[in-house]
Amino acid sequence: VRAAGNGSTLGAGADDVAVVRSNGKNLVVKVDMLVERTDVPPGMTYRQAARKAVASCVSDFAAKGVRPRAFLVSLGLRRGTSQAQVEELGRGFRDAESEWKVKMVGGDTNEAGELVIDCAMVGFADRFVRRSGGRPGEALVVTGRFGYQPAGLKILMEGAKGDRAFSARAKDSVLNPGPDLRVGLALAGYLSSGMDSSDGLARSLHTLAGEGKLGFEVTALPLGEGVKKFAQANGASPEELVLEGGEEYVIVGTMPRDKLRAAKKAVRRVGGEVIVIGRATAEAGRVELRSGGRTRPIEDRGWTHLA
Amino acid sequence: VRAAGNGSTLGAGADDVAVVRSNGKNLVVKVDMLVERTDVPPGMTYRQAARKAVASCVSDFAAKGVRPRAFLVSLGLRRGTSQAQVEELGRGFRDAESEWKVKMVGGDTNEAGELVIDCAMVGFADRFVRRSGGRPGEALVVTGRFGYQPAGLKILMEGAKGDRAFSARAKDSVLNPGPDLRVGLALAGYLSSGMDSSDGLARSLHTLAGEGKLGFEVTALPLGEGVKKFAQANGASPEELVLEGGEEYVIVGTMPRDKLRAAKKAVRRVGGEVIVIGRATAEAGRVELRSGGRTRPIEDRGWTHLA
Repeated sequence: VRAAGNGSTLGAGADDVAVVRSNGKNLVVKVDMLVERTDVPPGMTYRQAARKAVASCVSDFAAKGVRPRAFLVSLGLRRGTSQAQVEELGRGFRDAESEWKVKMVGGDTNEAGELVIDCAMVGFADRFVRRSGGRPGEALVVTGRFGYQPAGLKILMEGAKGDRAFSARAKDSVLNPGPDLRVGLALAGYLSSGMDSSDGLARSLHTLAGEGKLGFEVTALPLGEGVKKFAQANGASPEELVLEGGEEYVIVGTMPRDKLRAAKKAVRRVGGEVIVIGRATAEAGRVELRSGGRTRPIEDRGWTHLA
Repeated sequence: VRAAGNGSTLGAGADDVAVVRSNGKNLVVKVDMLVERTDVPPGMTYRQAARKAVASCVSDFAAKGVRPRAFLVSLGLRRGTSQAQVEELGRGFRDAESEWKVKMVGGDTNEAGELVIDCAMVGFADRFVRRSGGRPGEALVVTGRFGYQPAGLKILMEGAKGDRAFSARAKDSVLNPGPDLRVGLALAGYLSSGMDSSDGLARSLHTLAGEGKLGFEVTALPLGEGVKKFAQANGASPEELVLEGGEEYVIVGTMPRDKLRAAKKAVRRVGGEVIVIGRATAEAGRVELRSGGRTRPIEDRGWTHLA
């Protein structure tokens, strides 16, 4: 699910989704492969893995502001996968169907050495949010707070400890990851550019800066509640947890300042929030954190895989 | 690529492709996963594997009579896959693009324990050939001869021997498998039902019989040239090679007899052939071979995987 690379390696398009024109309409298509060894942490059930495979596609549709219409799944199953496990996967796909109101319309099942779930999602759109289009001076916004996901992985994989409520939330962010499609659809009309944070906040900022020929100055890290305390208790850096996670499925984008108020209202109406974390600058490719009077670069780093 | 199951296991549709309606048009979508252990025989290059992954989707579009517009690929790559191998895959996708005039518009790259290539293909159609719709008395037709593919696998995997020309053709049928999209598009308007033979002729006949509530009486096995001789030299059954292969990517369908002449002419014009191998009957689910005055059942069997 996390990008070990992307379609452009092979000469394909560079946005989060592919677009095919037909009769003046845009067909939007996205594929995303979940592979057990890198995308299924200890503690994640088959049902959760199936839902997650769909979630990663929904997240891109949400960030692009496009309502998904249908999805298909190709499965690679270990030899000896039980009927109960196949049913678990089916339940996960049902969860996704009802959560995001999108229908599974087909698939393909194969034998493989480990669980592989490739989700292909389609939708139609007159317009969609691109990675480019932001302008210097615009607000840099996100739709959620960061740090829960890498904290959850540390808990699940390294035995890190947090207080009960924080641990539950952090683990849940890994096992039942986000995307809020309603937030994406409500926000899209206000964004000048955007993408989801599936490869972590720092990497998303660098990608958005590169594609938009912008720089970003982050003035307020969107620190999740309890992340600082968890970091201190586990010898981790809160900034790193916020910047170098991944699969938060939060939207990161730019927006003209005069649209902020209406955007916040529209997103609040569907239960979400728009958080301003900084601004876009004209210094293409430069991504910086300004904090306590000091400015330092934000590195283009993210957790690329489960260890 | 061969079906170890299909989408219907998970409650999805039962035809070879999925259809999503939009503005009175049909969006046709197909996903097909190639997994190294079951779909990449010894002797197949990465370039050929990439082309094959696309071929299996093109084959379904050809059988449904739908021109594909675009495809996306999700890749699972072994750790340590070289840049040269990635470029090989890229060349195979380029081969597919130019052979079938279809564009690769996106993808996703991941680490996996073996090579996995999932192809998702989209196209638009007013109508398409379904698995059901055939009627008793109609002609049973195929668009190619059978036996090369299982012979090629026996040569590549078991060291079976054939004369030089036959061996080359048989191996080629495995390494650079078929589908002739022009034949499919030329034929579609004449078929009452149809599908591709990706799971072998016998299994395709049973599937088509089941979905169409028909029986089939095969009176002339579509034996490939040299298949009988190869079978005799290698202690194999020619009938088994013809019936229980797979991935021939030939179209199997039914057609009213009064359309045969026009269909043959239309398909000949694009360099293909329509071969009548028997007829549809009213005996739902009964698939038989009538040969030399004897009638015997054709079992619902196919090679499901590379051994």
